[in-house]
Amino acid sequence: MSPSMHDIEEGLASTPKFDADGLVTAVVTDATSGDVLMVAHMNEEALQKTIASGEAWYYSRSRKALWKKGETSGHAQRVIELRVDCDQDALWLKVDQKGGGACHTGRRSCFYRAVPLGKTGAVTLEFRDAEKTFDPGKVYK
Amino acid sequence: MSPSMHDIEEGLASTPKFDADGLVTAVVTDATSGDVLMVAHMNEEALQKTIASGEAWYYSRSRKALWKKGETSGHAQRVIELRVDCDQDALWLKVDQKGGGACHTGRRSCFYRAVPLGKTGAVTLEFRDAEKTFDPGKVYK
Repeated sequence: MSPSMHDIEEGLASTPKFDADGLVTAVVTDATSGDVLMVAHMNEEALQKTIASGEAWYYSRSRKALWKKGETSGHAQRVIELRVDCDQDALWLKVDQKGGGACHTGRRSCFYRAVPLGKTGAVTLEFRDAEKTFDPGKVYK
Repeated sequence: MSPSMHDIEEGLASTPKFDADGLVTAVVTDATSGDVLMVAHMNEEALQKTIASGEAWYYSRSRKALWKKGETSGHAQRVIELRVDCDQDALWLKVDQKGGGACHTGRRSCFYRAVPLGKTGAVTLEFRDAEKTFDPGKVYK
């Protein structure tokens, strides 16, 4: 029997709501700065491995594969706290980010460009905190 | 012509990568505390309205409708900063959350339960910052 909406929202049973592709959204923030580092996805196995190990595992939609963050780069994420949202289809990981950063472009966070507000029509992004903190060419061989 | 991966990641043209349903993921944090308040979705129109107005608009997958945050509850979100991630399929909104909170359950954040780490097998969630900050029965008529 499926859990009721009340059970999902107010209960203490973990009943992740995986989507049609078997995934939930994972928002990853730096436990120290609070900045959002990245948005990724987890399937059931990635979630189980993350819970068991305290290190972040994800599911890559492009590579269609389970993926331990840092397995190539060494930039692993130790999970300080893992939270689930009201309808249990999204997770929030507060992490201790190892190495130079989370983003494959060589930056601490994937969110290094801002969208200016109060405009209509074509939008030009602006770099913010966009300095590279590691050389992706060296880290991803 | 589609933009190259290099243009998407390192360029300043806004080229949001909407998924098969026409949506991007929007992570919403409290600009003051840094806490993640909610995860929602935007279609192109919601994104345009958010940029133009500086207030958060989303697209509800369950209601299949454009939705201005706070239109029923009064708990609007003024966007302090809007950022886009490397591959332009996720947005980060830092907001000034009006009213008691962002979550329809009556809490400031949708992430009011933690998943304990270091366990295997069945998981029991734990309440964190779960006190209700407003009465959803009064706010959502």
